[in-house]
Parts: sequence; structure tokens; C-alpha cells
Amino acid sequence: MLREWKATEKPEEGELKKRLIAARDKLARQQMLIKEKKVPVLVLMEGWGTAGKGSCIGEIIQNIDPRFFKVESMEKKTEEEERRPFLYRHFAKIPEAGKFVFLDSGWMGETVGDYLRGELKESEYTKRIESIRRFERQLTDNGYLVMKFFLHISEKEQKKRIKHLAEEKDTMWRVNRNDMWQNHHYEKCVDAFSSYMKDTSMPSAPWYIIDAKSKKWTELQVLETLTQGIDIAFNNRDMAVPLLQNVFPLEKMPLLSEIPLDKELADEEYQEELKQLQTRLGELHNRLYRKKVPVIIAYEGWDAAGKGGNIKRITGALDPRGYEVHPIASPEPHEKARHYLWRFWTRLPKTGHIAIFDRTWYGRVMVERLEGFCSENDWKRAYNEINEFEKELYDWGAVIIKFWVQIDKVTQLRRFTDRQNTPEKQWKITDEDWRNREKWDQYEDAVNEMIAKTSTTYAPWHVLESVDKKYARIKALKIVIEELEKVLDTH
Amino acid sequence: MLREWKATEKPEEGELKKRLIAARDKLARQQMLIKEKKVPVLVLMEGWGTAGKGSCIGEIIQNIDPRFFKVESMEKKTEEEERRPFLYRHFAKIPEAGKFVFLDSGWMGETVGDYLRGELKESEYTKRIESIRRFERQLTDNGYLVMKFFLHISEKEQKKRIKHLAEEKDTMWRVNRNDMWQNHHYEKCVDAFSSYMKDTSMPSAPWYIIDAKSKKWTELQVLETLTQGIDIAFNNRDMAVPLLQNVFPLEKMPLLSEIPLDKELADEEYQEELKQLQTRLGELHNRLYRKKVPVIIAYEGWDAAGKGGNIKRITGALDPRGYEVHPIASPEPHEKARHYLWRFWTRLPKTGHIAIFDRTWYGRVMVERLEGFCSENDWKRAYNEINEFEKELYDWGAVIIKFWVQIDKVTQLRRFTDRQNTPEKQWKITDEDWRNREKWDQYEDAVNEMIAKTSTTYAPWHVLESVDKKYARIKALKIVIEELEKVLDTH
Repeated sequence: MLREWKATEKPEEGELKKRLIAARDKLARQQMLIKEKKVPVLVLMEGWGTAGKGSCIGEIIQNIDPRFFKVESMEKKTEEEERRPFLYRHFAKIPEAGKFVFLDSGWMGETVGDYLRGELKESEYTKRIESIRRFERQLTDNGYLVMKFFLHISEKEQKKRIKHLAEEKDTMWRVNRNDMWQNHHYEKCVDAFSSYMKDTSMPSAPWYIIDAKSKKWTELQVLETLTQGIDIAFNNRDMAVPLLQNVFPLEKMPLLSEIPLDKELADEEYQEELKQLQTRLGELHNRLYRKKVPVIIAYEGWDAAGKGGNIKRITGALDPRGYEVHPIASPEPHEKARHYLWRFWTRLPKTGHIAIFDRTWYGRVMVERLEGFCSENDWKRAYNEINEFEKELYDWGAVIIKFWVQIDKVTQLRRFTDRQNTPEKQWKITDEDWRNREKWDQYEDAVNEMIAKTSTTYAPWHVLESVDKKYARIKALKIVIEELEKVLDTH
Repeated sequence: MLREWKATEKPEEGELKKRLIAARDKLARQQMLIKEKKVPVLVLMEGWGTAGKGSCIGEIIQNIDPRFFKVESMEKKTEEEERRPFLYRHFAKIPEAGKFVFLDSGWMGETVGDYLRGELKESEYTKRIESIRRFERQLTDNGYLVMKFFLHISEKEQKKRIKHLAEEKDTMWRVNRNDMWQNHHYEKCVDAFSSYMKDTSMPSAPWYIIDAKSKKWTELQVLETLTQGIDIAFNNRDMAVPLLQNVFPLEKMPLLSEIPLDKELADEEYQEELKQLQTRLGELHNRLYRKKVPVIIAYEGWDAAGKGGNIKRITGALDPRGYEVHPIASPEPHEKARHYLWRFWTRLPKTGHIAIFDRTWYGRVMVERLEGFCSENDWKRAYNEINEFEKELYDWGAVIIKFWVQIDKVTQLRRFTDRQNTPEKQWKITDEDWRNREKWDQYEDAVNEMIAKTSTTYAPWHVLESVDKKYARIKALKIVIEELEKVLDTH
């Protein structure tokens, strides 16, 4: 793309000033609407070293109230970040609805850099491009405005700037080895940048190449493109998105109503098995930790199905330094203001750790669907988005175990009544539980659809028959052990 | 894509019937809304030979009033079509707003077929993919719903069907050589289809792979996906589209106000030059015809600027069998109901012919812009769409010459008054001309923007100073001659 690209001619000084004032004003006015209409705006500023990414962002934010934006620079990955999937730190930075985030380079800089340094093989690079395309599509599909700028300067110009900066003691620190490397391998970089931009330019988030030869002119081009993008985003807030066909391999699952719930376990047998299995799980957890395999265990199920007690039997076997349990309630305001997967991306385990989620991202296709917290288009699209999310984790190397804890309606009523009648259990039962119970049939339909559409071969659902909680606990332990053994054997 | 794809499990007979009835009903109901909301729906049915594309379309249209749809089969190109650009016959078939067009295979079948038969080199294939991506994007950006289905069957299934059809005398004709070729080179075809679909799957027009093993099941999958796509299109009718950055090389052009209009030609000199130039043009026209170069001459300019007389001096030199003049007025209803470029695509010259347009596709960024006949997003997007359109023609081998016939406001008034006062010229002047004149300044801004944004190196604007019409005519002839000489020299 860079080779075909031609710079627009820079306007004369007077014209430039006039347009700059107009564009700044426009952005200043738009920020209030951004807030009011709750549009999240992600501005990705990429480009050559010394092209002026930082100073361009510096100019632009002067038109925005500091409460409404954040600037993030791409730093070297921390050790914590190294132990998370590639998209982790990028997903973590997405803006809240109604706010701007400016990224002083992001996943493009990182990916092309890794590729040029030979740290990514061709096949890994291709996979990353796929991840990035999905990531950006998920953002724009969910109402994000994603504006991608590439600040472009010529080889000669870059050389001049590097020389100039290096000459002065005060600015020497601003030239880094990467800038010099780029300049020495300018043509190779042009190819790499171009092919990246070609592969990731989508109608919903196209690339804009900016002639960065002069500061004010750079600012003007970015401002005019950005404000135009914002206008379009305002217009498209209620857009529906085509539902993509499933491309992930699915396992055939039974309907909930087809699952017999009469399974039970005698107390003695339970105690014996529990002890054995927990010991075994403890051993595996240690090996897991050493081999740095990340594990994600997701619990969903009916109210009073016995999720809490089930989780306890798992964690009882684990070294506390190697796992976290995340109870998931309704999202906090700052969570609700972001992509619905954000609060799960940011809670991912490190390699070698186990993260247990007590309720999960599947809320999107259950409670959010049934209570109308998102549009029909939103939850219908979510099956694919979730399959993509889990595929990302699987490709990273994670073991994903998903449990649906199943009981029947009568059992639930018995447990609800028991909770209500037992003072020390009363906190466990709320009006909402009773309201949800009234919608049992709708929930059952939603759960059946969810299980059918998200039981991928790499992250299938396991149903735990939990009328007898003991049976369900033993079954859960066995499945976890089996899955861990599988992955440890292949490592 | 085909290799990763997994068929959804076919529902049982009872379930299938129930869903089929529901989906047919839904489509039957949607057709009225399609008409009311003026959504054009293009259904592209591609897939393996004997997969049942035709019979699937046959089932689906039974739910639609025959006035609201058309079925088009891909035939071998006629000689007329061979002499037009690749997209010509496809663009010609796009539906009107409020109607369906079903294509029993289209540009995918043609392109992959040509590629597999070795009729397209790798580089030509890549170029075609680019053309197709632009074409589909232009359709969806302009409110078209484009649904792309690929009917998939296994190698074994295809072999069985071919054998079955070939056994019966009555159905033998339905097996063609291409089907058999496909079956013998099944794996190679899988690769070619997959890579095509991967390259042309865009968020706004994704591919849907359909398990075509059984008829009713095929119909159900297509119906459910189609009706869902229609719902989404209803929702998105007022969508705005991100404005893409210009990627075409532009020539620097002066503002209209910077062009001196005092140029003139003495009568004698004019007559002499006219004769010489027309003779020369006549010769070139013959060579052009033999070398099969298509030529497009586009005229735009102020009312009463002298377009008609100018065109006459060109056509006066041409062999009538080798050119057409297209006077462009406001679009007819059936033209207005389609993509605004449709009436120009369908008027393209054959190779070796000259098409002269008296007013053009630039109406989009002049009258349609200023009179509010399209949205701001529409006309702003049009600069790029037009550059893409002309690039398509240029790549096909066409010479594109665009004239802006320029006069000043005083000259226009003099000519208007003259027309009004001369009985035999009165038909040439209407109230609309006077109304347009009142908007002179707005038009001038729009024309300046148009010339600046669409003077590509492959199709630049030429301004004809036409206060002295004789001067303008001679200049036009010279430019046409020069452009034709250039292209004939390189042939």
C-alpha cells in the first residue's frame, strides 16, 4: 500500500491554519456527543520511528477534556504480559463507551516488529493476522470506532530526523536502535508495513496513511479523518451486523431434557473417590505449573444447582499460589462500558495458572439475551464471538473446561425452599432467583442453543448431573483430571 | 475454507418441515417490506456442478411474487460481452431497489473457472479478485444486500450424481464436461474455491457454505440465512460508510477561477485547423477500430457552455458505425432504482468503439450533491467509487478523456438571454437552467472539489476554455488526437 500511496498536496499556510482551526473546533464539539451517545473511540497511531506519532497525539488531545481520553504507549512486554496471549494487553486497553483511547503504536507495531526481527515464523505471523482481523471486527461489530493511522515519512526524511535528534544531547535518547534499524532496512520495512496494512484493511476499519513530513499538516490530516470517522460512527450506532457462519468444529450435544438426572453416589464411595481424585489433581497442578500450561474452568448452571460446592472440591486440591476463582456478578459500570468480553480478557490466567470462573462470558447468550440487556443482533453474534475468543485461548495453549451444572425444576424448588427456611442460608436466595425461576423454560431454550452452538471440539461443554451433588463433584474432578492428563501427555 | 468447514447436523424430518414452513413464511412476508423499504437483494448461488444451485433457486422463488424477482443464469459470454470489461455483464444484472435477483452462479464461477482452466495468469487472477472486492463493496456500501452461498457436496456425492444423471437419457444433457472435470480434479477445485472465498469474504458480504447433500435441507439453510440477512439489511438502511482514503495517483489541477478565459481563435484559422484535425481523427478512429481500443469521452460543463457543438465537431470526424453519443438526463425510474453507476456500466463501448457521454456519472458529486438527491455520505464516497470505476475501465484498456467545458457567469447570462430571445433556440433554455445559475457559487465549489479529487493520472480532467467556442472545439480535438496517438503508439 505504501508504494502506491501518493501524498495529498499540503495546502498553503493560510488555508492550513484555517482548516486546522475548523477541525480542532469540530473535535472539541464532538467530544460531548461522543460522551452523550456513548461511542467508544480507539485511535491507533502507527508509523515509522521518528514520524511524530507521540507529538501528533499530543496535539490532538489538547482539544479533548482530560476526563474523556487516555493515551497509552506501547512498552516492552512485562513478564506478566509475556505469560498472557498476544491480544491480552491490547484488549485490556480498549476504551470505555463515550471515551477516547489513543495508542502510541499497538498491535501493528508489535506484530510487524516481531516479524521483521525474525521472532515470528511465517505461519505464526499468518495466525496473528487472523487474530487481529477478528479482534478489530469484534470491536467494530460491537459499536467501537476504530481509526487506524499510519504516519509515513521517506527514507531520506527519517535519516535526517535521526541525525538531527542524535546530534543534540537533549534529544539523543529519543533515537532508539529500532529507528536506526528501520532506516537501514527501509525498503524491507515498506514491504512489511504494506503487506500488513493490506491484510488488515477492512471496510469497517480501513487504514489511513498520513503524510507526516510536517507537524501541522500531519495533525490536520489526522484530525479531519478522525472527525469524519466520528460523524459516521454517530450515524451507525444502531447498525446490525451480518451473522457469520460457524467455522468452528462442533460436537453433537444432547438437549438438557434428554439427560437423565437419576445418577447418584453413596456417601462412602464419594469420600473415597474424592480423596483419591484430589490427590491426583494436586499432583497434576504441580506439573502444570512447571510446564506453564494455562487452564480455564468455566462454571454455568441453574441457580442452586451446586456450583459453589463443586468449585470448592476442585480448589480444595490446588496450591493457592497457582489458581484464582473469579465470581462473576452483573458488570460494574466500567465493565459494562466496554466490550462484554473485556472483563474476561483482563481476568485470564497466566501460563501455569488455573482460572476458575463462577459464571462466565456466557451471560451474553443467557441473562443478557433474556433480559434484553443487549440487542438480538448482539446475542446472536455472540456465539461466534465466543467461539473466536475461546479459539484464541486454545491456540495460545490453554486448556478450556466448561461445565453446565444441571438440575431439574423440582430440585431447584426444594433447594430454594430449604434456603429460605434455613436462617444461615437465607443470604443465598434472592428475589431475582425466584424471578429467574419463572423464566425456566426460556432459559432452558437459551441454554440448549448455547450448548449446541458453542460446544467446539477445542472447548466442549460438559454437563454435570447435580441432583446428587456428590455425583456432580466427582464427575467434575474426573473431567478436569482427564483433560489435564491429556495436555500434559502431549507436552 | 471448505476444508475447515463442518456441516451443521441436518435436523430430523419433522423439525426440518416445521422450520421450512416458518422460513418460507418469513420470506413471503419480507418481500413486501423489501419492496416498501426499497432494499435491492442480490443472491449469488455458487457451488459444485450438480450441487443443485438451480433447483434451490427454483424452490426459493416460489415464495416470492414473480414481479419482484428475476433469475439469471451464467451463460457462456456472448461476443458482445467478450468485448466489454469483466464486470460488465455482472454489473448489468444487479437488482432494482425493492427486488431480488438470483444468480445461478456468477463472477465466482467465472473467475475460478477461468483460473482452473489456465485462462487467467496468477497476476490477472489477483487483479480480478481486487475488482470483485471493489464491486461487492460498492454494492453493499450503496445499500445492496449481497448474499453469497456456496453449495457444497463431497467428491463421492458428486460422482454419484453425475453417474445417476448420465444413466438416464432424459437427464444426460444436465451433466456437462465441467462437472466431470471438477470431479476428476476435486481436490484442486477445493483449493481454488477455498482461496477465492477466503479472499472475498468481507464482513459486509460474507460467504455462507451450504451443505447441499439433500434438497430440502439445502433450501432450509439458504432460506434461514437469507431471511436473517434481510432483517439485518432492514435495520441498516441508513448506515453511513467509512470514507476510504484515496489510493489513486492524482494530478494537480488549478481552480476554475485561476483559469484565464480570454483565449480565442480567428475564424479562418479555426476552419483550417478544424479540417486538418478532423481528417487526422478520422484516420485514428479507423486504426482504433482495428486495434480494438475502447474510448470513453466524458463531457461536463456549465449550462450553455457549448458542450453540444463541441461534441458535434468530434463526431463529425468519426465513422458512425464506430461510436455512440449518450445524452445523460435525469435517471429513469428503473435507473434510479439501481446503483448510480449502473446506467453507465450498461452504456460502455465495445472494444474498438468510442462512447461519448454528454453529462456523466459526475452528476453524483454535482447535481445530486447540491440538490440533496443523495446523502452526504453518498456523494463523499462517490469520488473514490468513481476513481475505482475509471480504474476498472483503464485496466481493461480503455482511453478515458474527461472534459470540463468552462465559461464565466457573464458569458452564460449572455447566452441564456440570446436563447430566450431567439425563437428557434428557446427550447434550449428552461427554468431549471435559471435555477442552477442561481447556485453558481455552490456549483463552482463542487466542481473544484470534483476536479481535484478525480483527476487521476489515468483519467485526468481537461478544461476547455469555451468563451470562444471555436477555441474550445479545436482544443478538444487536439486532446482527443493526442490521447489516441499515445495509446496507438504503445499498441
